[in-house]
Amino acid sequence: MEARMTVHHQQGTRHFVCTAGEPVAPLLRDAGLLPLPCGLGKCGKCLIYADTAPTDEERSLLGERRLAAGLRLACHTRARDGLEITVPHAGALKVLTQYADMDYVREPLVRRVPLAVGEATLEDQRSDVQRLLTAAQAGGHELTLEELTALPAQLRSGEALAALLHGEKLLGLRPQGTSHALIVDIGTTTVAALLADLDGQRIVAALGERNAQSPYGADVISRIHREMEWEKAGRQGSNPLQAAICRQIDDMLQRLLAESGIQDVDMLSLTGNTTMLHLLCGLPGEHISKAPFIPVTLEPMCLPAQRLGIRSAGRCFLMPGISSYIGADIVASLLAADAHHPQEPFLLVDLGTNAETVLYADGKLLACSAAAGPCFEGATLSCGMAGQDGAIDAVEADAAQGLRFSTIGGAPAQGICGSGVLDALALLLDAGCVDETGRLEAGDSPLGRRIRDDALLLTETVRFTQRDIREVQLAKAAVRAGMEILLQEAGLRHEDVRRLYLAGGFGSAMRPRSAARIGLIPAGLEQRVHVLGNAASFGALRYVSEKGAQAAAAELIRQTRYIELSAHGGFSESYVEQMIFPAA
Amino acid sequence: MEARMTVHHQQGTRHFVCTAGEPVAPLLRDAGLLPLPCGLGKCGKCLIYADTAPTDEERSLLGERRLAAGLRLACHTRARDGLEITVPHAGALKVLTQYADMDYVREPLVRRVPLAVGEATLEDQRSDVQRLLTAAQAGGHELTLEELTALPAQLRSGEALAALLHGEKLLGLRPQGTSHALIVDIGTTTVAALLADLDGQRIVAALGERNAQSPYGADVISRIHREMEWEKAGRQGSNPLQAAICRQIDDMLQRLLAESGIQDVDMLSLTGNTTMLHLLCGLPGEHISKAPFIPVTLEPMCLPAQRLGIRSAGRCFLMPGISSYIGADIVASLLAADAHHPQEPFLLVDLGTNAETVLYADGKLLACSAAAGPCFEGATLSCGMAGQDGAIDAVEADAAQGLRFSTIGGAPAQGICGSGVLDALALLLDAGCVDETGRLEAGDSPLGRRIRDDALLLTETVRFTQRDIREVQLAKAAVRAGMEILLQEAGLRHEDVRRLYLAGGFGSAMRPRSAARIGLIPAGLEQRVHVLGNAASFGALRYVSEKGAQAAAAELIRQTRYIELSAHGGFSESYVEQMIFPAA
Repeated sequence: MEARMTVHHQQGTRHFVCTAGEPVAPLLRDAGLLPLPCGLGKCGKCLIYADTAPTDEERSLLGERRLAAGLRLACHTRARDGLEITVPHAGALKVLTQYADMDYVREPLVRRVPLAVGEATLEDQRSDVQRLLTAAQAGGHELTLEELTALPAQLRSGEALAALLHGEKLLGLRPQGTSHALIVDIGTTTVAALLADLDGQRIVAALGERNAQSPYGADVISRIHREMEWEKAGRQGSNPLQAAICRQIDDMLQRLLAESGIQDVDMLSLTGNTTMLHLLCGLPGEHISKAPFIPVTLEPMCLPAQRLGIRSAGRCFLMPGISSYIGADIVASLLAADAHHPQEPFLLVDLGTNAETVLYADGKLLACSAAAGPCFEGATLSCGMAGQDGAIDAVEADAAQGLRFSTIGGAPAQGICGSGVLDALALLLDAGCVDETGRLEAGDSPLGRRIRDDALLLTETVRFTQRDIREVQLAKAAVRAGMEILLQEAGLRHEDVRRLYLAGGFGSAMRPRSAARIGLIPAGLEQRVHVLGNAASFGALRYVSEKGAQAAAAELIRQTRYIELSAHGGFSESYVEQMIFPAA
Repeated sequence: MEARMTVHHQQGTRHFVCTAGEPVAPLLRDAGLLPLPCGLGKCGKCLIYADTAPTDEERSLLGERRLAAGLRLACHTRARDGLEITVPHAGALKVLTQYADMDYVREPLVRRVPLAVGEATLEDQRSDVQRLLTAAQAGGHELTLEELTALPAQLRSGEALAALLHGEKLLGLRPQGTSHALIVDIGTTTVAALLADLDGQRIVAALGERNAQSPYGADVISRIHREMEWEKAGRQGSNPLQAAICRQIDDMLQRLLAESGIQDVDMLSLTGNTTMLHLLCGLPGEHISKAPFIPVTLEPMCLPAQRLGIRSAGRCFLMPGISSYIGADIVASLLAADAHHPQEPFLLVDLGTNAETVLYADGKLLACSAAAGPCFEGATLSCGMAGQDGAIDAVEADAAQGLRFSTIGGAPAQGICGSGVLDALALLLDAGCVDETGRLEAGDSPLGRRIRDDALLLTETVRFTQRDIREVQLAKAAVRAGMEILLQEAGLRHEDVRRLYLAGGFGSAMRPRSAARIGLIPAGLEQRVHVLGNAASFGALRYVSEKGAQAAAAELIRQTRYIELSAHGGFSESYVEQMIFPAA
């Protein structure tokens, strides 16, 4: 009997037509989706998610916890019609290999220290807590009443215990062993989670997912409005936005733990923009969304994970932010860019719906946030799309055809994503098909002949229109005007900037030459681009694993002057100036 | 129609026979049980507890909260058969008048500071928390997520707010106004609660009650055993001992608040012996009860009152202790005795089931706890009883009758309490009816003729027997041996001790001369006795209202060497020596 099977993997989804009852392991291996360490069903490493009845061997190799999380072994799974398989994203994100290589002084914020607590005698009648503090060389503790209640039995159990220390403070007791942390960057669009082994200094596993709040709106403002509606309706039930993100983080943690066979993490380092962290904590975002744009708090926070509904005995460390629109994710990116160590002047830009821009010079920082709108994420363009399979992500000149392009995953072109948009516009400017005011004109060149009905035809269906060009023009003007205001305020010229750090997905994907060609970044700086990739995650890892990073982050924030562009006298003029595209 | 009415008041219970429908206010006033401020039913101050349907005027004068607590106005209450009235204990305990007079530098641990939080503008975009911290001159905060969630609306409400500060730390926001504290001394037998106005430096109201854990056992060991049984039975439901004391404190707080018309307290200062504080927190007492006598913790604790099921937004400050048998109540008594300020050598004794004894000299302290057993509380003596109505509390020589006595409340003698026991034994020793080995012998004197069948007859039914004398002899030997060990260890003689502080109820009630006569205290020190009364409550008040008292308490504890008598080489010898009564 024929069986149709769906396999979700990191790059997308594939469909298989096979015979019911056929083993799925060879199919997955041959499709390059899953390595089979032993291929015999014995090693227990060919993990997949599948809704099947577990075999006895799966039971013994995986254990109840992983089975309950939906994990199965490919070698023990047989095809059936309608079966859906998900291949775990082991070692997915770019940051993965960087951790062990990176050059910084390690000192995890929370660490496990093996304990030898002396026995009580009539000559040494110190309390259990006092003997514990002495053995752990701790200056105090944050044990809850429940933990204190369990302490006498624990100390007398003979178990090999470790103290969980946060600086001088004892947080709790754990079994002796390796300390792990979950690192989460809560982006408005995507949530990235890394499971880090703090002792071995390696990333054990990683996951990236669409933010579960997405159904409530694409951008921070619509999310906040949704949350305000819930408040105005009388706060019935739990806050839906908070519940969505907390459940998602919990779910990602449980899957990462189950996949890695790790019991629990000792801490969670959480970063994200100011709105995302407000929604995570259930704090009202109303005043972030309207002038004068006031967040409830930007301070770092330390909360038990359980307080956020996350099933872990670890503590959540929420990173501090700078303002409503320069959040903890930018602070993290600054740590990733080494801004807490002296260096030559740099610009750091995180391009999304808002372009958060920071100028660093001599240990002082200037920051602003420019509303770019969602066009770089493809949302408002006629054929725009996110950077997924089928998106045109690169466009080049071609003498014969006028242009040639590539798509993500090599799939048939379905639309165009941010990096493709920059390339296409740069190409049009180079060819003189768009003038410096942004007007699109057909012509007799191979490229010019692809312009019809006020649109460049990339394919018969994928078009880049005059209206799209206007959208990009407005966005790039806002972003670039922000940069110019920062440089003006600091009294610096473009050539003084030694590095241009690009954070975030779009920054990593775009070609600097195209960005400079359309004027999104100043001419000349395309040579000085340093792509940080998943900078916020990496900074959040440094925040909890680099010696002195928390104090360094606080100092960076103290040294930052935030410039509210909407209140800046020079912004309108600069914005209009930057509307013009650079001459060839 | 005749109505029988019962009135519970601080000194006991009285029964009234009156006419149904008759106003009760004049009856209570004439019996000296209640002052009537206006006598017209208009001032709302003649508060009583009664189970009656409230009148409209009571509704408007008292408000729903007090009505719900059972409070009524005497001027609006009419007699009916079976009516039970309780007169609130306004201003009961001895400590009442002392607070305002006492000479120490005030600086409450938690204080309300009126706030003026600036409005946010585009030029001042600091977060709500940051503007709040600046306005409060606070260095950090402990606001919960719920409090942070409520903050934006609170700051924008226009309400006159005060910051609740604990040192540099912002604990929360409150309406502007006076700050109150609840002071609780959890004794094994009784619980004393004071409601203190920290700004006005006065005690607003006080309550004293039998510890609600009493049904679970009279002493700490039986309470611990009861708690262990609950643990061993699988910890079903809530811990009954913890629930009893938490409910009792909550109930006392609600009554004190309702009687005083105060909204809430900002903090609670809790003291008590180590077992009582363990049971309060639900911490297992098992290892307190058996060698080597190890408590879970002796550290000070700070908990939200709600964590203990107490309906208050205040914080509980639990005082620190010295050892399993020298608890936070003794630390409080030391503060009451000014031990944190330099003075001449003193002994402090709190006589109960255990005699906690502290010797102070040159800023160093030695402490021990001697098992006196319950005989001073009347429990094990043949006609012993607690210091209640009808207890013989004082016995004197009488040439004709051999002795005369008084009873508490002037009621017919029902038994004898601790102070009476000391007097009676001193009298027998003076008269030679008990020799220095403790043998009771009848004789031909008026006193000697009252000795029959190995017992002194105080009345026909109230007897003080040979066996009772042996009990007292053992108890006084233990207490006194402890004192002698401390003096030996410090290299001091009796005459070096300049003051003998007596803490606790029995210490206040006993006559020092009798105590010295039977050898419970060293001869000569009866001239140097200072009665501290409810020292633990007063010390707990100082702990949260005296500048630097928390650090002072920590330093006192650091300076204290606890001597475990059961492990002390000289104790047995001293114990046997002290068995002998002093010669005349």
